[in-house]
Amino acid sequence: MSIKAVVFDAYGTLYDIQSVAAVTEQEFPGYGDIITQIWRIKQLEYTWLRSLMRRYEDFAVVTRESLAYTLRCLGLKYDADAFERIMDKYLHLDLYPDALASLTAMKPNKLAILSNGSPGMLNALVKNSGLESVLDATISVDAKRIFKPSPDAYTLIESTLDIPPSDVLFISSNPWDACGAKAFGLNVAWIERVTPEAMALACIESEAVAPLTMFKAIRTQMDELGLEPDYRIRALSELPGLIALRS
Amino acid sequence: MSIKAVVFDAYGTLYDIQSVAAVTEQEFPGYGDIITQIWRIKQLEYTWLRSLMRRYEDFAVVTRESLAYTLRCLGLKYDADAFERIMDKYLHLDLYPDALASLTAMKPNKLAILSNGSPGMLNALVKNSGLESVLDATISVDAKRIFKPSPDAYTLIESTLDIPPSDVLFISSNPWDACGAKAFGLNVAWIERVTPEAMALACIESEAVAPLTMFKAIRTQMDELGLEPDYRIRALSELPGLIALRS
Repeated sequence: MSIKAVVFDAYGTLYDIQSVAAVTEQEFPGYGDIITQIWRIKQLEYTWLRSLMRRYEDFAVVTRESLAYTLRCLGLKYDADAFERIMDKYLHLDLYPDALASLTAMKPNKLAILSNGSPGMLNALVKNSGLESVLDATISVDAKRIFKPSPDAYTLIESTLDIPPSDVLFISSNPWDACGAKAFGLNVAWIERVTPEAMALACIESEAVAPLTMFKAIRTQMDELGLEPDYRIRALSELPGLIALRS
Repeated sequence: MSIKAVVFDAYGTLYDIQSVAAVTEQEFPGYGDIITQIWRIKQLEYTWLRSLMRRYEDFAVVTRESLAYTLRCLGLKYDADAFERIMDKYLHLDLYPDALASLTAMKPNKLAILSNGSPGMLNALVKNSGLESVLDATISVDAKRIFKPSPDAYTLIESTLDIPPSDVLFISSNPWDACGAKAFGLNVAWIERVTPEAMALACIESEAVAPLTMFKAIRTQMDELGLEPDYRIRALSELPGLIALRS
């Protein structure tokens, strides 16, 4: 195996989805964390449910609908402007601090994103974050009208880059995405951003937990889906060294 | 439209999935609630993910894997016997108190279950809870090797009962299941067991919440999937009156 392309998940992997909490807290003081967590949890649920129901709508629609669900669930009143200010943060998510340097160091390889995001959302995000010049392609599942982890979504890597799955290293911090990519036949590095030790510690006072702790418990630990990623790393900054060994 | 069959979701609709908390708390004091909530949240995630990945395993496997995930996530050590004692509760879930009387009162209609549960799990549960004599059929999605809300799962109602979707009333307390059934073309009554007012009130102290509150926030409010159930009821006991009007 030699790696010819490195393909990244976007939300949660290159971009810190928790960075919306600054805006949700500003618009709804005291509710920033719980909005952020319910929104993200429902956003992904809706991608899976709509895919299974064969009622695809793009990620911009799903992101709006999951935010609307969240604010209704919490009984929060809001005007259209507040809603749009929160939504806008999805086009300006914070990059993980090591993202740009790590990608630049891997530049001899083809670099791409494969994301659930709609083309409009992804193009804006990549441009706003300064990744435009370092990426060879930004691939949206929208071309297949189904979300990850459907195998159909992962086929877009080969059809776009003309590189077979065996020569691709796929990077995700989302356990279900790492499993989906592995099931499809890609080489996979999973970014374990929350260690098992930190996770267990956060849940010791389990009678009342921060919404962020529940999010981490649900969505940051490796899933039990009968699949294992090829590599476990802790941060994007480990990738250039890993790639150097395999290119 | 005249209703000729009433078909029920099982877990959460006829059977109280929260009733596992007595056993999880007994095995892991202090962790009963958080185990119960993470387990249920992951159990359904795995049905959706495996369906999308085309890696179906039956609900018994998914239920075991989601419990294993939960205990690992919380850093809890356990022996095989403790694990099996918790699993066994899934074959002895509590019926909602109004379930048997409500079903009996609708008996002139055909009555059935359509559930994600494996045939083995469902047959044991129906027998242990005394619903065997009142149900005309217990239908498992296992025959299609895909979980709800895939349309394929809901086709099993007509192929088993020989009654078209337009003559079926489907009952679920799970919002995503009510939406899936509606998208498929069934008449749908959704049981809203947590009112919007109670939901909002539970989240006012949102910096630290009970795991059950997070579960409710994620899985008990009507979803934003562009679909509306035909009826909203608060309890199974409202069904005989509703059916009398439509039969």
